[in-house]
Amino acid sequence: MSGPSRPVPFTADDYRARMARAADAAAGAGLAGVLVAPGPDLVHLTGYQPVNTERLTLLVLTPGQDPVLVVPTLEAPDAAEAVGGPALTLRDWTDGKDPYAVAAPLLRDRGKYGISDNTWAMHLLGLQGALPDTSYVSLTEALPMLRAVKDARELERLAAAGAAADAVYEEILKVRFSGRAETDIAAELADLLKRFGHSQVDFTVVGSGPNGANPHHEAGDRTIEPGDMVVLDFGGLKHGYGSDTSRTVHVGEPTAEERRVHDIVRQAQEAGCAAVRPGIACQEVDRAARAVIAEAGYGERFIHRTGHGIGVTTHEPPYMIEGEELPLVPGMCFSVEPGIYLPGRFGVRIEDIVTVTEDGGRRLNATSRELAIVE
Amino acid sequence: MSGPSRPVPFTADDYRARMARAADAAAGAGLAGVLVAPGPDLVHLTGYQPVNTERLTLLVLTPGQDPVLVVPTLEAPDAAEAVGGPALTLRDWTDGKDPYAVAAPLLRDRGKYGISDNTWAMHLLGLQGALPDTSYVSLTEALPMLRAVKDARELERLAAAGAAADAVYEEILKVRFSGRAETDIAAELADLLKRFGHSQVDFTVVGSGPNGANPHHEAGDRTIEPGDMVVLDFGGLKHGYGSDTSRTVHVGEPTAEERRVHDIVRQAQEAGCAAVRPGIACQEVDRAARAVIAEAGYGERFIHRTGHGIGVTTHEPPYMIEGEELPLVPGMCFSVEPGIYLPGRFGVRIEDIVTVTEDGGRRLNATSRELAIVE
Repeated sequence: MSGPSRPVPFTADDYRARMARAADAAAGAGLAGVLVAPGPDLVHLTGYQPVNTERLTLLVLTPGQDPVLVVPTLEAPDAAEAVGGPALTLRDWTDGKDPYAVAAPLLRDRGKYGISDNTWAMHLLGLQGALPDTSYVSLTEALPMLRAVKDARELERLAAAGAAADAVYEEILKVRFSGRAETDIAAELADLLKRFGHSQVDFTVVGSGPNGANPHHEAGDRTIEPGDMVVLDFGGLKHGYGSDTSRTVHVGEPTAEERRVHDIVRQAQEAGCAAVRPGIACQEVDRAARAVIAEAGYGERFIHRTGHGIGVTTHEPPYMIEGEELPLVPGMCFSVEPGIYLPGRFGVRIEDIVTVTEDGGRRLNATSRELAIVE
Repeated sequence: MSGPSRPVPFTADDYRARMARAADAAAGAGLAGVLVAPGPDLVHLTGYQPVNTERLTLLVLTPGQDPVLVVPTLEAPDAAEAVGGPALTLRDWTDGKDPYAVAAPLLRDRGKYGISDNTWAMHLLGLQGALPDTSYVSLTEALPMLRAVKDARELERLAAAGAAADAVYEEILKVRFSGRAETDIAAELADLLKRFGHSQVDFTVVGSGPNGANPHHEAGDRTIEPGDMVVLDFGGLKHGYGSDTSRTVHVGEPTAEERRVHDIVRQAQEAGCAAVRPGIACQEVDRAARAVIAEAGYGERFIHRTGHGIGVTTHEPPYMIEGEELPLVPGMCFSVEPGIYLPGRFGVRIEDIVTVTEDGGRRLNATSRELAIVE
């Protein structure tokens, strides 16, 4: 088939702008700056993704100053060659030297810094040791909008990843489920994700019968049988941005109860999506979906949050969960994925990625949410 | 071919013993306990490897008490099913609750804890917020021997992984290099690692000609040509334990200079391995290898440490590096991998995994270290 062409690559200027925005946001939040270790925040801000994380690599963003990357000498050439490399001043350190002594002069004593959530504790302890009067706060807590709000070119990539995941679902409906191991179907999902342009497969959940009642079950040796409900939940990265969709299918004719439970989840997912609009709190999306399930008497069987953000990773803040008062802003992208889990019997989950628009929400997944019958 | 059979699986008792040893070591070091987030330390201590790291999962080891695992409710069933699961008391927390409030009562106020290096900074900040008078130190700094010293059953696995990597090298010598992209050879290395029993390929470095002069080059589009030196450095996990070996080969006849540089590295690697014995400091291994290269006039061209530990990961402490005074102890396993890098021209690296014995060292890689000629 002919798909959309490859998106226009990001440039050093794109990353320069993102880093400037992050530094401005830090200033606005009363922070002395932002510290970013290897991981999704560094990918988002610089396009640089070192393999190594044990040696200190740290982006230091200070309002009004050029971005500086503390980097092991060995890896400086790779950092310089990253797409965002031209926007960075490198400060390298050699094996055997104290990297925190290289980073410390870049930080303000008694300043407060946002630090990327996944920075190693070892590195945070090293910084705390070098600058005892400097304080730190998790970047997601301090600047929750930084990665959460996507620009137009990021949305284009997320939409393409969603369309690819939808194509995967349409294809998997054509295969035989009955008599095959969950892991077989999972392998087919992985192959299809790659066939439809994913460079990375993050998860391929196939939860058949009772396995579907454990939301964290991936795929196992169990042979799928006629009469099984099967939860499918798969995604990964395409052109650097994530996909994540779930549908629940049935092998042969479902019982009335199975239809009813599926229908409740479908309505809950619809309610969650319908609630999305700028200004409401994340928890309102959770409440809207959860209310439908609770009213149907299955409240105790919806045992996880309703959704999570998606971007350069397939799972990230913000979370659609009771207690999360962060307001929705146009450009945010997250999953809406309520479920009902009946231990020892079966589970149902339906999931789309939704982006917040100026006046509501728009799904990035468009396959049917009716209960599909497979062979 | 017939290889060694699958090793005897680890049991809950193995993990129970490891956790007891860790708690004892903590007590011996004056620590109140050990805190372990998902990652290699948790794999080593419990056999449990959750996919998720954004939600707090934390093993709390307190001397004289049973191990407790703080775990998201959703993931508690998976944790219970891990091989080490029966040795753990689970304390689960539900989405929307404060996980640090669940962990805090398990810790001693004003106590000092070793915390796994790769714990997310977000989680360390959460613990620091919940218990302001408790202090933390990186686990590798506090208890460097904990994972570094391998027991007999771990050594058996590391030896099997090394033998598999050796078999890969013997096979790759038979393939044509000239006229092919580095990435082609890298793909063959990856296939071979899997064919010889690896479940995970961590790296397949193919650095031809000038690319070999960048020790962190992986493999690129460059076409390998007659006259090229080619650095090969590959490894991954087999039965949960790491392999990592490097050899440098030459396409066709090498020049006298190429032979000489290779010979210096070979002698340096020999000297590094020969230095290994219980009681000497890690840095002595580095010094022994580095002295050979420095005496030959290439000291400035050996731009990285001599080695790193290996175990449930392919790169871990201890490091064979100037300044590392940790003494070698029987059962430690690490790489000895000196190199010479001539910018714009070529590089040479030779690497074996070595384990410390009662009276010296024993290589876990046994392929020829002479300069092999390939087509």
